[in-house]
Amino acid sequence: MNRLPTIMIEPAVRAALLEDLGRAGDITTDAIARSDLPTTTALVARQSGVVAGLDVAALAFRLIDPAIVLTEQRPDGARVAPGETIALIDGPARGILTAERVALNFLSRLSGVASATASLVAAVAGTHARIVCTRKTTPLLRAMEKYAVRAGGGANHRFGLDDAALIKDNHIAIAGGVAAAIERVRAHVGHLVKIEVEVDTLGQLEEALGVGVDAALLDNMSLEDLRRAVGMIAGRAISEASGRVTEDSAPAIAATGVDLISVGWLTHSAPILDIGLDYRG
Amino acid sequence: MNRLPTIMIEPAVRAALLEDLGRAGDITTDAIARSDLPTTTALVARQSGVVAGLDVAALAFRLIDPAIVLTEQRPDGARVAPGETIALIDGPARGILTAERVALNFLSRLSGVASATASLVAAVAGTHARIVCTRKTTPLLRAMEKYAVRAGGGANHRFGLDDAALIKDNHIAIAGGVAAAIERVRAHVGHLVKIEVEVDTLGQLEEALGVGVDAALLDNMSLEDLRRAVGMIAGRAISEASGRVTEDSAPAIAATGVDLISVGWLTHSAPILDIGLDYRG
Amino acid sequence: MNRLPTIMIEPAVRAALLEDLGRAGDITTDAIARSDLPTTTALVARQSGVVAGLDVAALAFRLIDPAIVLTEQRPDGARVAPGETIALIDGPARGILTAERVALNFLSRLSGVASATASLVAAVAGTHARIVCTRKTTPLLRAMEKYAVRAGGGANHRFGLDDAALIKDNHIAIAGGVAAAIERVRAHVGHLVKIEVEVDTLGQLEEALGVGVDAALLDNMSLEDLRRAVGMIAGRAISEASGRVTEDSAPAIAATGVDLISVGWLTHSAPILDIGLDYRG
Amino acid sequence: MNRLPTIMIEPAVRAALLEDLGRAGDITTDAIARSDLPTTTALVARQSGVVAGLDVAALAFRLIDPAIVLTEQRPDGARVAPGETIALIDGPARGILTAERVALNFLSRLSGVASATASLVAAVAGTHARIVCTRKTTPLLRAMEKYAVRAGGGANHRFGLDDAALIKDNHIAIAGGVAAAIERVRAHVGHLVKIEVEVDTLGQLEEALGVGVDAALLDNMSLEDLRRAVGMIAGRAISEASGRVTEDSAPAIAATGVDLISVGWLTHSAPILDIGLDYRG
Amino acid sequence: MNRLPTIMIEPAVRAALLEDLGRAGDITTDAIARSDLPTTTALVARQSGVVAGLDVAALAFRLIDPAIVLTEQRPDGARVAPGETIALIDGPARGILTAERVALNFLSRLSGVASATASLVAAVAGTHARIVCTRKTTPLLRAMEKYAVRAGGGANHRFGLDDAALIKDNHIAIAGGVAAAIERVRAHVGHLVKIEVEVDTLGQLEEALGVGVDAALLDNMSLEDLRRAVGMIAGRAISEASGRVTEDSAPAIAATGVDLISVGWLTHSAPILDIGLDYRG
Amino acid sequence: MNRLPTIMIEPAVRAALLEDLGRAGDITTDAIARSDLPTTTALVARQSGVVAGLDVAALAFRLIDPAIVLTEQRPDGARVAPGETIALIDGPARGILTAERVALNFLSRLSGVASATASLVAAVAGTHARIVCTRKTTPLLRAMEKYAVRAGGGANHRFGLDDAALIKDNHIAIAGGVAAAIERVRAHVGHLVKIEVEVDTLGQLEEALGVGVDAALLDNMSLEDLRRAVGMIAGRAISEASGRVTEDSAPAIAATGVDLISVGWLTHSAPILDIGLDYRG
Repeated sequence: MNRLPTIMIEPAVRAALLEDLGRAGDITTDAIARSDLPTTTALVARQSGVVAGLDVAALAFRLIDPAIVLTEQRPDGARVAPGETIALIDGPARGILTAERVALNFLSRLSGVASATASLVAAVAGTHARIVCTRKTTPLLRAMEKYAVRAGGGANHRFGLDDAALIKDNHIAIAGGVAAAIERVRAHVGHLVKIEVEVDTLGQLEEALGVGVDAALLDNMSLEDLRRAVGMIAGRAISEASGRVTEDSAPAIAATGVDLISVGWLTHSAPILDIGLDYRG
Repeated sequence: MNRLPTIMIEPAVRAALLEDLGRAGDITTDAIARSDLPTTTALVARQSGVVAGLDVAALAFRLIDPAIVLTEQRPDGARVAPGETIALIDGPARGILTAERVALNFLSRLSGVASATASLVAAVAGTHARIVCTRKTTPLLRAMEKYAVRAGGGANHRFGLDDAALIKDNHIAIAGGVAAAIERVRAHVGHLVKIEVEVDTLGQLEEALGVGVDAALLDNMSLEDLRRAVGMIAGRAISEASGRVTEDSAPAIAATGVDLISVGWLTHSAPILDIGLDYRG
Repeated sequence: MNRLPTIMIEPAVRAALLEDLGRAGDITTDAIARSDLPTTTALVARQSGVVAGLDVAALAFRLIDPAIVLTEQRPDGARVAPGETIALIDGPARGILTAERVALNFLSRLSGVASATASLVAAVAGTHARIVCTRKTTPLLRAMEKYAVRAGGGANHRFGLDDAALIKDNHIAIAGGVAAAIERVRAHVGHLVKIEVEVDTLGQLEEALGVGVDAALLDNMSLEDLRRAVGMIAGRAISEASGRVTEDSAPAIAATGVDLISVGWLTHSAPILDIGLDYRG
Repeated sequence: MNRLPTIMIEPAVRAALLEDLGRAGDITTDAIARSDLPTTTALVARQSGVVAGLDVAALAFRLIDPAIVLTEQRPDGARVAPGETIALIDGPARGILTAERVALNFLSRLSGVASATASLVAAVAGTHARIVCTRKTTPLLRAMEKYAVRAGGGANHRFGLDDAALIKDNHIAIAGGVAAAIERVRAHVGHLVKIEVEVDTLGQLEEALGVGVDAALLDNMSLEDLRRAVGMIAGRAISEASGRVTEDSAPAIAATGVDLISVGWLTHSAPILDIGLDYRG
Repeated sequence: MNRLPTIMIEPAVRAALLEDLGRAGDITTDAIARSDLPTTTALVARQSGVVAGLDVAALAFRLIDPAIVLTEQRPDGARVAPGETIALIDGPARGILTAERVALNFLSRLSGVASATASLVAAVAGTHARIVCTRKTTPLLRAMEKYAVRAGGGANHRFGLDDAALIKDNHIAIAGGVAAAIERVRAHVGHLVKIEVEVDTLGQLEEALGVGVDAALLDNMSLEDLRRAVGMIAGRAISEASGRVTEDSAPAIAATGVDLISVGWLTHSAPILDIGLDYRG
Repeated sequence: MNRLPTIMIEPAVRAALLEDLGRAGDITTDAIARSDLPTTTALVARQSGVVAGLDVAALAFRLIDPAIVLTEQRPDGARVAPGETIALIDGPARGILTAERVALNFLSRLSGVASATASLVAAVAGTHARIVCTRKTTPLLRAMEKYAVRAGGGANHRFGLDDAALIKDNHIAIAGGVAAAIERVRAHVGHLVKIEVEVDTLGQLEEALGVGVDAALLDNMSLEDLRRAVGMIAGRAISEASGRVTEDSAPAIAATGVDLISVGWLTHSAPILDIGLDYRG
């Protein structure tokens, strides 16, 4: 797991801390925790899942008090069991109490994304298919959530509107057909930009393959059609299945031979991984 | 429903659009949608739920192209059925295609929060209890998510570390007891700040009531203890139940007579409300 | 005195330094102070008053040169006499000269607020009344000025439009009466939000007490009316006197038995505390 | 009076509004002012003074609701009497109530600076001397406060560390003398940068004049020394008197023939001009 | 030419205007242009070249005064002759004078990039080769400069470190060889990410082709080697020539059959296109 | 050479790094450079020129990884020969690879400005004339580019619209003449602001000298007229020649006796200084 550079995560962590501190800061802790006696706490998993976001949590604590140190026990990408210690947080109690909620809000959310991803990855284990995310991410957290998908063993689809071309139904309608749309895009984009087209039917797929395309998004197709599509593509493009993917349906979809299965809910609807902060002295 | 002022939502919407546009913008749409012919599209619910975030969606479209107009059919707070039109979006196709994903990312997430809230509110209908959210919100989206909770019929707990005092177990441990903690906080905070204390046992509650407190957070208590707690409080403080609240468990919790039921997953784990953008000409 | 977390003051200090440095930086010092020989300077009070803002001053120096160290002699909240040393500033002369004005602009302003507060607090010593500030703060410096009021021994009124409800004359006019206004607000706000109502007459106060309210702002009342108001309230709400408060008038106002005396000029018109930076070698 | 471009004041006004709105917005007004019926209000002077900041106030209202219109009756720079209407504010009551405090915080502060300036300008009327401000401004509001000084009839000293060189006592000490300091600075700065030197004695002044300088800041000199200094300078440099300037002492200082009298408290300690917002229907 | 959305260019234009306005604004124009009489001016080419950046220039004027209107005569991408009018700028003289320099700084720089690109494009006309830019762009202006390259008829290489993989000599050294490097990257990146490898020798190219790669950057090769490389690649990858490309050398490089010729100086060293603002009444 | 304070350069360096990292970071290096083994690299000049911007480059590396250390061999302002080592960069290979392009983009651009300046300075060596830059700088990089001009031995003209008055042809036209324009400006600006007027003819110059002015910009005059202008000015104002200055024409212009020669292309069109990063183990 390659971590994101601190410079990429710091703006969001700063903003989230300020969002929580408001104009008066942590008035409860300020009233009570007058001393800065050293404290040891632990981030503990309350559920099984996969960890993601320890750098983000560590930064949240450090930005409140540089004396707080996070020591990882289970790094990003590791699977944890309920009750397992993910990391130790040592430092002055006051800062730990103040930063706790923001650190957990990031860590539990990103670990939730990683855990959901890992479950789907496990569901298709032994097949050729990879699990990929979409652009249906939480606003302002895209880089972090894409990272969490990687931590869970998944791969990333495009990161935005600009790093790959994805031709959808409305683009096809405006262009007047699949082939016309692909050709317009090919004439427009740079040489390092891949082009994917979303197709609803095998007829559209055939049209796309006729003019050539880097990837085909097979949207909401039946298993039978997916199988046929994979056969038609025959390695000339990347095949991606999409639509109504669950842990139950994923194995059968993967069995059709598609290269990728894309899943929006990894980032838009995965529940958090429940993680708590326990005080140990 | 009082909407949030535009000035409060604009920074996040701008940042989310730039996050998606990256450095090259919408390369697919730019290649294809060369004309700016007027288009009519509709935001359509794919599931039943409650709408929240139409101003945010409208702003996303407008920031991409001021010529795009959103006309509400079902305002924030309204319940929608699958297939029901929430709003019409009229304007140049190009801008609508470019802003679509960001607008939907906000709208479907906030509507998801509102819908989850509304389900719990319905579950306790006829009782005295109100459903409230927590600080377990998505980083950077707290004001919007708190708004979505209100759109779903819920109420808001504190918005940050600074607008109310909430004394938790670790504060009590540091202060050396419930009463000591409350007194330290009372001496510290302003006259318009309410103080709530989290108690795990009826003994702690008794100690809190002895020194007086504005609200008591009854954490993970049994139904029997909740009932006793409500009796002990006897209107002298607001009672709030918390911990493992689901649609199934909520009615019984509400029946204990508590004033509030607080639920973290409304904001940290509610799935989105599936909303699509359909092209109508 | 609990200090504000650095993360809360850093944006304003950075912006103020850049405001002063402009596009060319400190051209005078750059021309002259070519060496970075260690220097010792002292922040010295030129008047008697109360110190506030040493963290802000220290940060201003540190952001210009991390080698500059501020050692407090008289911490925030301490009273100083003319000529008394507040803190020592050690480090390279160049950075000290460059940061001096911005550091002093913050420190003397915040100390001015603390000093004005302390004078009023002293004026009501021995009474029950506390001195509180208002929202009439310097734009962009609210958190710091509210902090300075606490450093001076005062307490804080609400920090913004959102952390407590304050019903004013125009709200009452729109709602159609005191009771109606209070009830509308109570139905609207969360359980941790207190409600205060501004009343001009004892009749309005009676109406407010009839429906219950957390605090009553007794605006510009005569001493006689204040006394009667305190009697009418009889502990059922917090009483706050406001309007034309000076060091001379404050004792008599406090003697009426009000809980709070709120004073706008602590933050909008307090003169600075004159503090200089003396070079000692 | 040339107004500041909107682009220069908008960042501070936006930030001040967000500072006041916090995370929940104006909860009192939101609860009460459900309708957006048109309202007419007036900004009314409660004291006599000089107006400054109407563009800032207008922008505060407009950023909350673009439908709010401010119509000036007494423009920036105009003198107003108690009770006089400065401007009318027309628009939906809700937005006016929400923006009122921020608009007044800017307007009353800037008008306070203008009024203090105007008083000193009047005190030296008929003399050659101009009143100028310093860099002792409110952090983050320098451009606005310098503008307010101009609105009050004063002139501006340098705006920051970079637009003119001002050699102070510590610079002289480091350089090893007045002449050495001036020569080092002259060798360093661009051709459009003026150089001013602060002198405490007539001996230092003589040294400065010997090497030539654009302006001499005569710091805390007696009236007698000021007179001699003006004679020594004999038009070869601009003369500026500084230190302990009040409305009482200013005329005598001006009578010494100095070109400028600089006054820190115009911007660091001027009380606000009391301005209220009256509802008229 | 598809223009960049305003939201993408506005932050840089705002920042550039504030950089120029400083703390006091346009003091010369403010002193002189007291009236806001309507003026007509024209952006006129002083050299022949290709225009790019009219939206940026228009926004600079509009942000200073919304009443200023830019009417394009020669749109982005058009070739202009010396003396030719590019656009008319109508509006109040004051705002036009204030915004002029910033508008021209953007427009002349971007047009310089477009013009340099167009010259190279013309130099390889009739061949298969396309001219592409690099990441050697002006800091903070990458999106705009990449746009200007497109306006000049060129194509874009990757926009950053994250939208395509480009394996350079140091990566190869660390990985221990070309093939190893390609395989590590392929295992790491998403399915829509293309991989390019920089090779210095035909041996390295052979190794790359052996494991497959999307594009090969043929760095500083002789014409003879470029020809051989194109033959070896035989359409299995995109071929890109790089190094010491000038208008003189470009035709011969293009004649080798390479697909792309990448040129750093289009964005790092192209001189501006000289454009002036003429007053016409 | 006095360096710019870090606080002045950090915002641009952070923004440039984020511009390059995008949403996924350095995907190539992340795939390959898994270890953080210490590496030594060197910034090496590929051309002869003058260095500027080492602090900026060092900061770019440090913001990506605080463990990276830049050791200067040839400081800002030093002349380097092709192949000469400018600085050593030691630290983990991964961060060096990631920050390399941004560091070089700043360093080579600023060194290009310094080198172009130094060439012109050399061209007028032995004369009285100084080389100065203009406001035709790269948007957002003005402070850095003005610094680079100083590193190259040049001096700075005004930094923005606000630190000096520069009366141009259009101002004169609006004011109705040179003398009228100067007088309007003199009445308007502060005492530390110098006034320069741009004149096209000796008649205009005479008019300017008649009312007095700090500097005269002699725009596009013939050598003969420049000589006469210098004679007419006779030390009463600073003389500045401008227009079509090249290394070839500069000596003759300088020989006319002008004080300053201003050159726009130092900042708008200077090619970069080619600097590479070599790996040394």
